[in-house]
Amino acid sequence: MTSSHLSAEEFRRQGRAAVDWVADYLERLESFPVQSQVAPGDVRARLPSSPPERGEPFATVLADLEEVILPGITHWQAPGFFGYFPANSSGPSIMGELVSAGLGVQGMSWSTSPACTELETHVLDWMVELLGLPGRFLSSGAGGGVIQDSASSATLCALLAARERAGGAGGVAGGPLVAYASVEAHSSVAKAVRIAGLEHLRLIEVDDSFALRPEALDAAMVADRRAGRRPFFVCATVGTTGSTALDPLAPIGEICQRHGAWLHVDGAMAGVAALDPSLRWIHDGLELADSYCTNPHKWMLVNFDCDCFWVADRTDLVAALSVLPEYLRNPASDAGEVIDYRDWQVPLGRRFRALKLWFVIRHYGASGLRAHVAGHVALAQELAGWVGADPRFELAAPVPLNLVCFRHVGGDEVDRALLSALNATGRFFLTHTELDGRHTIRLCIGSARTERRHVEACWALVQELAPPA
Amino acid sequence: MTSSHLSAEEFRRQGRAAVDWVADYLERLESFPVQSQVAPGDVRARLPSSPPERGEPFATVLADLEEVILPGITHWQAPGFFGYFPANSSGPSIMGELVSAGLGVQGMSWSTSPACTELETHVLDWMVELLGLPGRFLSSGAGGGVIQDSASSATLCALLAARERAGGAGGVAGGPLVAYASVEAHSSVAKAVRIAGLEHLRLIEVDDSFALRPEALDAAMVADRRAGRRPFFVCATVGTTGSTALDPLAPIGEICQRHGAWLHVDGAMAGVAALDPSLRWIHDGLELADSYCTNPHKWMLVNFDCDCFWVADRTDLVAALSVLPEYLRNPASDAGEVIDYRDWQVPLGRRFRALKLWFVIRHYGASGLRAHVAGHVALAQELAGWVGADPRFELAAPVPLNLVCFRHVGGDEVDRALLSALNATGRFFLTHTELDGRHTIRLCIGSARTERRHVEACWALVQELAPPA
Repeated sequence: MTSSHLSAEEFRRQGRAAVDWVADYLERLESFPVQSQVAPGDVRARLPSSPPERGEPFATVLADLEEVILPGITHWQAPGFFGYFPANSSGPSIMGELVSAGLGVQGMSWSTSPACTELETHVLDWMVELLGLPGRFLSSGAGGGVIQDSASSATLCALLAARERAGGAGGVAGGPLVAYASVEAHSSVAKAVRIAGLEHLRLIEVDDSFALRPEALDAAMVADRRAGRRPFFVCATVGTTGSTALDPLAPIGEICQRHGAWLHVDGAMAGVAALDPSLRWIHDGLELADSYCTNPHKWMLVNFDCDCFWVADRTDLVAALSVLPEYLRNPASDAGEVIDYRDWQVPLGRRFRALKLWFVIRHYGASGLRAHVAGHVALAQELAGWVGADPRFELAAPVPLNLVCFRHVGGDEVDRALLSALNATGRFFLTHTELDGRHTIRLCIGSARTERRHVEACWALVQELAPPA
Repeated sequence: MTSSHLSAEEFRRQGRAAVDWVADYLERLESFPVQSQVAPGDVRARLPSSPPERGEPFATVLADLEEVILPGITHWQAPGFFGYFPANSSGPSIMGELVSAGLGVQGMSWSTSPACTELETHVLDWMVELLGLPGRFLSSGAGGGVIQDSASSATLCALLAARERAGGAGGVAGGPLVAYASVEAHSSVAKAVRIAGLEHLRLIEVDDSFALRPEALDAAMVADRRAGRRPFFVCATVGTTGSTALDPLAPIGEICQRHGAWLHVDGAMAGVAALDPSLRWIHDGLELADSYCTNPHKWMLVNFDCDCFWVADRTDLVAALSVLPEYLRNPASDAGEVIDYRDWQVPLGRRFRALKLWFVIRHYGASGLRAHVAGHVALAQELAGWVGADPRFELAAPVPLNLVCFRHVGGDEVDRALLSALNATGRFFLTHTELDGRHTIRLCIGSARTERRHVEACWALVQELAPPA
């Protein structure tokens, strides 16, 4: 009946037990149905209605983890997880998260734990090199990078910085502010606009590849200016959630410059493809962007949360988010010698997330990370070929990277039933979207453990379950 | 030269090494200067300018952790850490973070891992019981709880829900919206107002105990209504950052009801004091609040990030934050049978943070958690007595809980020099604020490892370093 702090020996013992539980879990990953089979309320029904009055042994907690929690888990780390976008975890990332929790530092200001800030700035500079991003995002100039919890927060921060540059939330010369993104942009753009209390978001039409049409963007901006409104923010996407469509950054950037609008580029999942030099063309034109983000917590082996967000000029971002009460003042900040990341994000507090990114980069090295994404892209290209060769199926969108969008030619109902039947086997998990107004199956290859055999087996199962054309 | 995924055996081996490193670190906590002694740039100067091309062994990474990172750490877990507010970590919390990283699930929707959502809802209900909070915050009614990253985000979400209830961001009947908090409220209130693009925040005067004066709040709200503006949101504080002042919730709540304003209560650090029934009076009047938050990641042994945020009615919160694209639709959500926490927060993605809270509650039990906060409060009360007994010092504010604000009677320069001298010893770390326009030393007792002997030694050192009155 422990109710006190762990001794060092207990900590070691429990730590080993927890590590072993995770190792066992990872070894058993293929033995579970990928998608949890529980019904709403099943997990809660097995938990006591009140918290314990006295402490309980760790073994009891681990037993409940196994018996109560595990059935309610959808296994994002399983090799048969092809749903949504991936949420990679990995050994070195888990170690980084463990060490971060052990150190328990709060990195709101440089001075509250200098290494927390400096390692983050440094590793974000490394990421610029690893992805071949424009040098203006390096911390050595006016720009720099920061870890956000998610691309949603990065988009919000970019929007707030853009608003700041346009004159702030209050009365702004040039009329009411207008933001733009494509109809295929992530839902977080609309959420950010709503949070910021802005009234105008234009969702711009896309071309046959589901990429934003620059001429339509330009026309919308011109029309807004004529109507007395002020275009101030454009979010372009490198790899839309629906189909990994790639908005053409160079013409969009040129249009933004002409209209004086901030260009944010959301490469949440797809951006890390640029680890592979042969895929760096996805970022053509990024040198015109004011801000950019990509999420190592999706496809680069760092567990959630780790979104890397860069700005070309940190002035507006800091101006938008800085509030400095007396109790946070300190000599280093007052001297302007340091970065205080509390001014680069919505929350004040922050934990030491750079550790897990650092551990991952050092464990895999640039070569290992490159191989990780290149392998998935190659598998997706192969799969796209198999889809094209089966007359019952059609590709619903181009396959530039690791997401294959396809549908059964028999129509929405057939397609929907096929997806349900596939997921009901528990062997794989895929999700859907709508493209051209039609139901579409999405198969994203990005789990750390996915190998060729898993993709082959999944496609064989799709073919087995699919009715004739 | 590893560059591939860890085998199960490697994972176990590295996991043990990481657990041992953390255990060793925690055993050595008292051997480091509490505040890092590095100068800006020192940490970065010891890191290679480019990322490694090939993977490196874990032992090399751990060696750098020790030699490069550790000197740049301010030790928030040290028993002599009395600065800011605490940022507790603990053995069971670290285990929970480890398991969460290992499972690697993304809990944006119930369906993306049902246990992630259900354990969170359940444990937040437990917290209502542990803290004796009003029953309207339980998920069994219209309300419910959610884990946010920080109280800053909770305040922002509360503000957005309040705006939604008041008619949304666009044109609102009743004129422009006005938010209120005391001059001692946390800086995150001003930040949230700015993020939301609102123009009016009134900072209301405080009484001698630094608590909001209800009659001044009422007068400000009346004046705003007369001027054609609409009072819509009040943030009251249970335990201000400056001095743990306690705003009087009952009269504030009554005023909010009269004016139709949303009452959010920020109990970020101090709220968990209510684990001890004898301290539950701090929440008197909370039954009138629309939302409330407190942070187990401050003083309840859960490592950052874990802010518990409750609403009495989840309708407005979900309406403010819900954006549902086709690719996130699923049968459980469509049937309205489940909670989708993506609609209760700013980001879309979320990791399994409830695990660490659950681990902590089960390890310590209600009795262990009670003892944790009660012990610190008792120590702070003792210390307040010692301060009062030394004619060179005065208490700068009442000491209702675990924060002692004091100053040397010799004036700001003496006080500032004393704080610098104290922190320069490396044995303790304290921070400052300003109260009544005067420099004030803050000594917050909340670290998991702080015992009576540490507080005694710190006070002895203060007395040793302090000049005569």
